[in-house]
Amino acid sequence: MAKIITIGREFGSGGRELGRCLADELGIAYYDNEIITKIAERTELAEGYVAHVMEHSPSATLPITVGRSFYMGADPLLEQNNLIYREQSRLIREMAEQSDCVIVGRSADYILREKEPFRIFVYADMEHKMERCRKRAPEQEHFTDRELKRHIQDVDRRRGRYYQFFTGQTWGDRLNYDLCINTSTGSIPGIVKAVARLVEWE
Amino acid sequence: MAKIITIGREFGSGGRELGRCLADELGIAYYDNEIITKIAERTELAEGYVAHVMEHSPSATLPITVGRSFYMGADPLLEQNNLIYREQSRLIREMAEQSDCVIVGRSADYILREKEPFRIFVYADMEHKMERCRKRAPEQEHFTDRELKRHIQDVDRRRGRYYQFFTGQTWGDRLNYDLCINTSTGSIPGIVKAVARLVEWE
Repeated sequence: MAKIITIGREFGSGGRELGRCLADELGIAYYDNEIITKIAERTELAEGYVAHVMEHSPSATLPITVGRSFYMGADPLLEQNNLIYREQSRLIREMAEQSDCVIVGRSADYILREKEPFRIFVYADMEHKMERCRKRAPEQEHFTDRELKRHIQDVDRRRGRYYQFFTGQTWGDRLNYDLCINTSTGSIPGIVKAVARLVEWE
Repeated sequence: MAKIITIGREFGSGGRELGRCLADELGIAYYDNEIITKIAERTELAEGYVAHVMEHSPSATLPITVGRSFYMGADPLLEQNNLIYREQSRLIREMAEQSDCVIVGRSADYILREKEPFRIFVYADMEHKMERCRKRAPEQEHFTDRELKRHIQDVDRRRGRYYQFFTGQTWGDRLNYDLCINTSTGSIPGIVKAVARLVEWE
């Protein structure tokens, strides 16, 4: 049976690093930003725009659009959101058909539910997420602690809303995952070795 | 550093089996019902009574007691609850001092927080918990599906209230654990091998 691993993750928790290392450890494909690039190609939309839309659920953009004076019956933003989601779903299914893989984010756990992927959710406490963000931040980024905390919360709120909108499920609710891992105390390489073992045993 | 593993678990999720197997795999002590037996010895209360009190938080018993006509200022049930909790805390700390160990339930994750135990929470979906309960049920137990489901929910609600009362934390909230494992899809032996690896890497 195909080995498909999906990873949901809180912003700053190291979920992406964990996913990449896990794919290396298992010797299987890894998909993350490649998904955005491919969708941009297929829809002929700018990559940055696709990324932006994928982080914002239609429910968040809807009220603004409805309030506009040039509202024409159908909501173009919602249409575009749906277009991107459909393209994303198709792409993720194609990837899962091609070979064993690790897919980070993009509601892949839900999109591939019939393939029964191994669903991981990666999280950490705020202190550790802030520390990780600081280490990875570009030099020109000068958030205060308070701004950084709010930024982390905002990103996760958007991810939660997006996931909820398209899946009808609660993002981060343990029942939607096979394993939830707190990266606050462990090292990613250590965690990856154990998770690889778990996946191989499944 | 001492290897202390605490396991919180939903009723019927296999948390106890997982704990016992994990202790075997790591070759360390395992504590579960032994705690009730010891508390009963020390407090000279009946074992069944101790078990009952430990599954019911004082907040659940309080309104009934307060309503009684022979209420005498201090609440004897609350007193007894506190006595048992104090004894339990002392005992769990003694156990953790003696040797590496796995401790199931009893708010051990919170009681031993200064020792930074590896905190696991075990859960499963309702269908699998019911199936597991059916397999393990005494022959004379004839719950309908609806009764069994309600029973499982009741036990977990009590565990949640008890934990919340004494720790001020939310039972099952992923942030209080290092690892949350869904046993619905995996086999306990497979999970145990991986978790043992994870604990050894920490």
